[in-house]
Amino acid sequence: MAGSSFGTMFRITTWGETHGAGVGVVIDGCPAGLELSREDIQKYLDRRRPGQSRYTTQRKEGDQVEILSGVFEGKTTGTPISLAVYNHDQRSKDYSNIKDLYRPGHADYTYDAKYGFRDYRGGGRSSGRETIGRVAAGAVAAKVLETLGIRISAYAKAIAGIEIDPDAFDEQEIFHNPFYMPDAKAAAKVKEYADQMIKEMDSVGGIIECVIQGVNPGVGDPVFDKLSADLGKAVLSIGSIKGFEIGDGFRVAEARGSENNDEFMEKDGKIVKRTNHSGGVLGGISDGSPIIFRAAVKPTPSIAREQHTADRFGKEVPIEIKGRHDPMIVPRAVVVVESMAAVTLLDAVLRGLGSTMDNLKKIYE
Amino acid sequence: MAGSSFGTMFRITTWGETHGAGVGVVIDGCPAGLELSREDIQKYLDRRRPGQSRYTTQRKEGDQVEILSGVFEGKTTGTPISLAVYNHDQRSKDYSNIKDLYRPGHADYTYDAKYGFRDYRGGGRSSGRETIGRVAAGAVAAKVLETLGIRISAYAKAIAGIEIDPDAFDEQEIFHNPFYMPDAKAAAKVKEYADQMIKEMDSVGGIIECVIQGVNPGVGDPVFDKLSADLGKAVLSIGSIKGFEIGDGFRVAEARGSENNDEFMEKDGKIVKRTNHSGGVLGGISDGSPIIFRAAVKPTPSIAREQHTADRFGKEVPIEIKGRHDPMIVPRAVVVVESMAAVTLLDAVLRGLGSTMDNLKKIYE
Amino acid sequence: MAGSSFGTMFRITTWGETHGAGVGVVIDGCPAGLELSREDIQKYLDRRRPGQSRYTTQRKEGDQVEILSGVFEGKTTGTPISLAVYNHDQRSKDYSNIKDLYRPGHADYTYDAKYGFRDYRGGGRSSGRETIGRVAAGAVAAKVLETLGIRISAYAKAIAGIEIDPDAFDEQEIFHNPFYMPDAKAAAKVKEYADQMIKEMDSVGGIIECVIQGVNPGVGDPVFDKLSADLGKAVLSIGSIKGFEIGDGFRVAEARGSENNDEFMEKDGKIVKRTNHSGGVLGGISDGSPIIFRAAVKPTPSIAREQHTADRFGKEVPIEIKGRHDPMIVPRAVVVVESMAAVTLLDAVLRGLGSTMDNLKKIYE
Amino acid sequence: MAGSSFGTMFRITTWGETHGAGVGVVIDGCPAGLELSREDIQKYLDRRRPGQSRYTTQRKEGDQVEILSGVFEGKTTGTPISLAVYNHDQRSKDYSNIKDLYRPGHADYTYDAKYGFRDYRGGGRSSGRETIGRVAAGAVAAKVLETLGIRISAYAKAIAGIEIDPDAFDEQEIFHNPFYMPDAKAAAKVKEYADQMIKEMDSVGGIIECVIQGVNPGVGDPVFDKLSADLGKAVLSIGSIKGFEIGDGFRVAEARGSENNDEFMEKDGKIVKRTNHSGGVLGGISDGSPIIFRAAVKPTPSIAREQHTADRFGKEVPIEIKGRHDPMIVPRAVVVVESMAAVTLLDAVLRGLGSTMDNLKKIYE
Repeated sequence: MAGSSFGTMFRITTWGETHGAGVGVVIDGCPAGLELSREDIQKYLDRRRPGQSRYTTQRKEGDQVEILSGVFEGKTTGTPISLAVYNHDQRSKDYSNIKDLYRPGHADYTYDAKYGFRDYRGGGRSSGRETIGRVAAGAVAAKVLETLGIRISAYAKAIAGIEIDPDAFDEQEIFHNPFYMPDAKAAAKVKEYADQMIKEMDSVGGIIECVIQGVNPGVGDPVFDKLSADLGKAVLSIGSIKGFEIGDGFRVAEARGSENNDEFMEKDGKIVKRTNHSGGVLGGISDGSPIIFRAAVKPTPSIAREQHTADRFGKEVPIEIKGRHDPMIVPRAVVVVESMAAVTLLDAVLRGLGSTMDNLKKIYE
Repeated sequence: MAGSSFGTMFRITTWGETHGAGVGVVIDGCPAGLELSREDIQKYLDRRRPGQSRYTTQRKEGDQVEILSGVFEGKTTGTPISLAVYNHDQRSKDYSNIKDLYRPGHADYTYDAKYGFRDYRGGGRSSGRETIGRVAAGAVAAKVLETLGIRISAYAKAIAGIEIDPDAFDEQEIFHNPFYMPDAKAAAKVKEYADQMIKEMDSVGGIIECVIQGVNPGVGDPVFDKLSADLGKAVLSIGSIKGFEIGDGFRVAEARGSENNDEFMEKDGKIVKRTNHSGGVLGGISDGSPIIFRAAVKPTPSIAREQHTADRFGKEVPIEIKGRHDPMIVPRAVVVVESMAAVTLLDAVLRGLGSTMDNLKKIYE
Repeated sequence: MAGSSFGTMFRITTWGETHGAGVGVVIDGCPAGLELSREDIQKYLDRRRPGQSRYTTQRKEGDQVEILSGVFEGKTTGTPISLAVYNHDQRSKDYSNIKDLYRPGHADYTYDAKYGFRDYRGGGRSSGRETIGRVAAGAVAAKVLETLGIRISAYAKAIAGIEIDPDAFDEQEIFHNPFYMPDAKAAAKVKEYADQMIKEMDSVGGIIECVIQGVNPGVGDPVFDKLSADLGKAVLSIGSIKGFEIGDGFRVAEARGSENNDEFMEKDGKIVKRTNHSGGVLGGISDGSPIIFRAAVKPTPSIAREQHTADRFGKEVPIEIKGRHDPMIVPRAVVVVESMAAVTLLDAVLRGLGSTMDNLKKIYE
Repeated sequence: MAGSSFGTMFRITTWGETHGAGVGVVIDGCPAGLELSREDIQKYLDRRRPGQSRYTTQRKEGDQVEILSGVFEGKTTGTPISLAVYNHDQRSKDYSNIKDLYRPGHADYTYDAKYGFRDYRGGGRSSGRETIGRVAAGAVAAKVLETLGIRISAYAKAIAGIEIDPDAFDEQEIFHNPFYMPDAKAAAKVKEYADQMIKEMDSVGGIIECVIQGVNPGVGDPVFDKLSADLGKAVLSIGSIKGFEIGDGFRVAEARGSENNDEFMEKDGKIVKRTNHSGGVLGGISDGSPIIFRAAVKPTPSIAREQHTADRFGKEVPIEIKGRHDPMIVPRAVVVVESMAAVTLLDAVLRGLGSTMDNLKKIYE
């Protein structure tokens, strides 16, 4: 099982390699009657496009999405939405130098171990281009969620140890710097550090934070399909993510119960929590507070400086990875995290529609 | 969908509440021909049993497992293995004081929000007893994995900020202190702190680490069903886990690519990694190094000191949670983490059997 | 994968062998708030109980169901409903005579081929007792469907070639003869034939018909998960069913389009079909007409007269299957067919709740 | 859930409507290392192509398949194989006459009931073009199965009541007449009848039979995922199939146990069955005999003669369906049945790889 599908009721299946004909996604289970245009999807893809700044790859990729099915007269029909981004730049290139090498930090070796061989061109299926399908699907999911009043926002919380100042948080700023940081000062420091990294032919990691607002209490399942667990899987399935935490996350390890428990209170006739250490999920089910989680992103493994590695015959060899590579993965991964959150949340909402006899009767009358 | 199943080929389905007739699990897809006895499972359950020390609940629960199906003449038959632990202590108790209250840090409110009402006795389905089915299934999975040379070991890495000293790591020690810590000195400090917590009627969190040895390279799927993502979901689905990280985890956020990349080298005719920042998984697939991950466990939400909360009518009320409660969740969660790791890994191994035409032909000749 | 689960949103997982501790089912995804008692389930089980007449096995099996979880104060909680029927008659019996034999028409040989060995006592997992879990789950599904105005009725349409007279159809009669035939005259003829079969130590097959009334148009999915395909799988998964047809079924092979097409018309402000050749499903989706399907049931393979077969060493040997066996499977399979129809239909209803944006908004407001 | 995926380990997801950009399929889980070319797939698609004779639609559709991913240097890589057939003839056409009408025997009404509206152009997702993805995937599955020595052959067994003569069965003949009948005389009679149907502006149904040779005993799962049940679902999910039977099928309803049981015997050191009433499956698991099943295909619902129907406002109106339509569905459905059988069987083979500890160890050493 190649594991290229995600979700149960809103189910996405991605396909495609860096250097094949293209990449894409089939979305099965999108409710009928959603207004959907190519632009709705394209604007999400543009956020992960390379070449937006010198801190992300300079290759021009275009990445124009096409809707191949599932939309009729501007509305989703309820049948599969097939989205594709064709590769236009398919110049045959010389890969003989890396064909037999195992690049450190990449999946070259593990693909060979699993499949016996691999498509060695540009990372094949484990390339960053694989996320195009995720983002295209995320754009659709986010549009459905918006109609329910749910809004998702991800951003870089820290890059190379430079953190945003929570007091200076400015949501508008996210789209005004190449790092998707909601704090202009922190972004300026990152810029300086990144310039240094480029000179040193090295790369840096960071932390992406995501906030989901407007989720009613009661979304998510207890036991295995906890909303927190599904969000965790969704985010950890993105290449180069090495950690996930929700609410106070790893800080709970040093907290006391009396500090970590969120008290319930009444506000405007509703029951709400006084604090949000839980990050919006209790027992796997949304509790009405904003859902907040973070992901740890590793530094770009492709670096220009010389490294050592082995080839597939076991011979140890030096390796220099040519070409322009992003000195950091974080900025382009922000929209991928946001997209996976949207896909996960919509699936949880749809799965929960029949949780009670009352809901069931409300629709099936 | 109540979300009570986990896995695709080795699929477990758990059932049961704290105060019902019992709890249990149905394991579907266990290979036929595994020698399996009640004792194989009981010894895992005994590790999560309460009443082992004053740092875990003093209630005597027995927790004797029964094999109801799927084993014949001491061997698994390939058909579902149904395991049950019946509740013998079902004294009717007075819950009128918490029936309408939303305990802070618990899932009372979210269950009501999702289902319209809840079984308010002792946490119902979101109680710690829900993990009995996971551990029973984990015992079976671990036994299958052992025959393949795969060994899983979890332990408390830190409690209340008191960390084990990596240089003092002693695997034998894990089973010699009530905290499952592989470092006697750290355990002694935790003991002292825990005594203090009991006095203060409070609780503490911690970090569980898990190491999986002996996994061949090539296990796990790329894209959504990455081994790291599946382990993440498995662990995050355990109640009170708020964070998951693999390999260097959140530390990668401050690392450089040149530091974080693991170089490949040749050793004894095999390709291995010189370091293991990746935690044994590259691109979602095992890379032959030990798989290492950590989970952040929140402090027990049930604390004896007075807290404030709301009842289901929105009225704010004080709450004191009576009875003996664990001052920490970590010790009893260690075996749960280990069990979920076993279930996840075995499922990944089984799912990967047909990854290549060569494998397919090897079995189907 | 042992294949012991069925359904996506209303998901059932059965377990148990004839001669183990018992048989049972875990139902995951039943909406919360359904009133459910042990009796609701028991009355379905009683319909498949052996010993009801001389035409079904005379063994006394009791088959008392126990609700182990998922029901609180008489209502389903939304969490897994675990149901068990324990085997009380577990006398150790001598199976040495059939242990190594492959009974004709049974799964002895195929289990050995698949798993390397088998639980040879009484058919193990492929025994008729396996259907207890299906019927228990069907009782729950049927109760949910009833609240939506959906009613399912199965009966014997033909046994040994003796068909009911459609003009004499009498629903009340179904429960008044041991064959579950809605026609007393046909039942009388079957009785005579069955007596003859018992004398001749042989067995007979038949046809079960099932009618589902009150299904709104719009239930079921196009493409692979057509309602007709899911019903087909559900019914064909019952042991000894060799054929399934919906509406006119195999008769369409000789029909003309002009005869087989159902015209649409208006009636009481609703669009309805003038005829129902389609059997209530068009393009995989319910069309508002009654859903009608039939299943072909093979004769009981266990017959008392001497047969020839091989043992597992390849030696050809005569075989006489001792003990009382039903001279026909049809009567006891009627409720199994009805149950699988209920489970399938409820799953389809639940899966369809989010088919449109309007429905989604109606619940998630 | 739109239900556009099929299979667990070899999982196919189809997309596309008649009048959109194209149709296609994503195949996830194909073992790596299979030699696969565009031609391997095209030759299957050519068998379902319209315009092959006057008995199937005269529209020229081309139907050229493109491999968009998953194949590298002529071999499958183990990652998703995305296959697309683009629609080149997308002339805008006037559908105003059928836009609001519910064609008898079509899914127009049920799509509207489910989704609130529909893509009314040429049947949308419920058109025969939907099967292109199935056939493309079937070609890949069949190629994998061939390497294991498994061969699948489907053909028309009867059209309009004209049956093939079993004694005249000639496999070569299947490809020599436009009806895919393995009996030239029967085909000649069908030709005559079909000419009559075209004159009478009517259509006819028939029966497709499929034989799978070379399947080892032990493939398929007991209980719900019986091989017979999965084949049944696969075939019943094809538009216009109204019945499925395996082995003796509906004939078992009139058979006696002593006739229907297949005796086991020894032949060349192997255990085999003397007869094959079971159709190659016992207890849901292959028994080593050829697997034989049949499907009932309804007459083409689109007929040129006038019919009566209702429009979506409930008004009753006459309808004449213009354009050339196949007077029978059977010939083009033959390869679809064969394809679904291949997909189902390969999935069952892959799911069964880890059925025993011995198999598990054989691969994972």
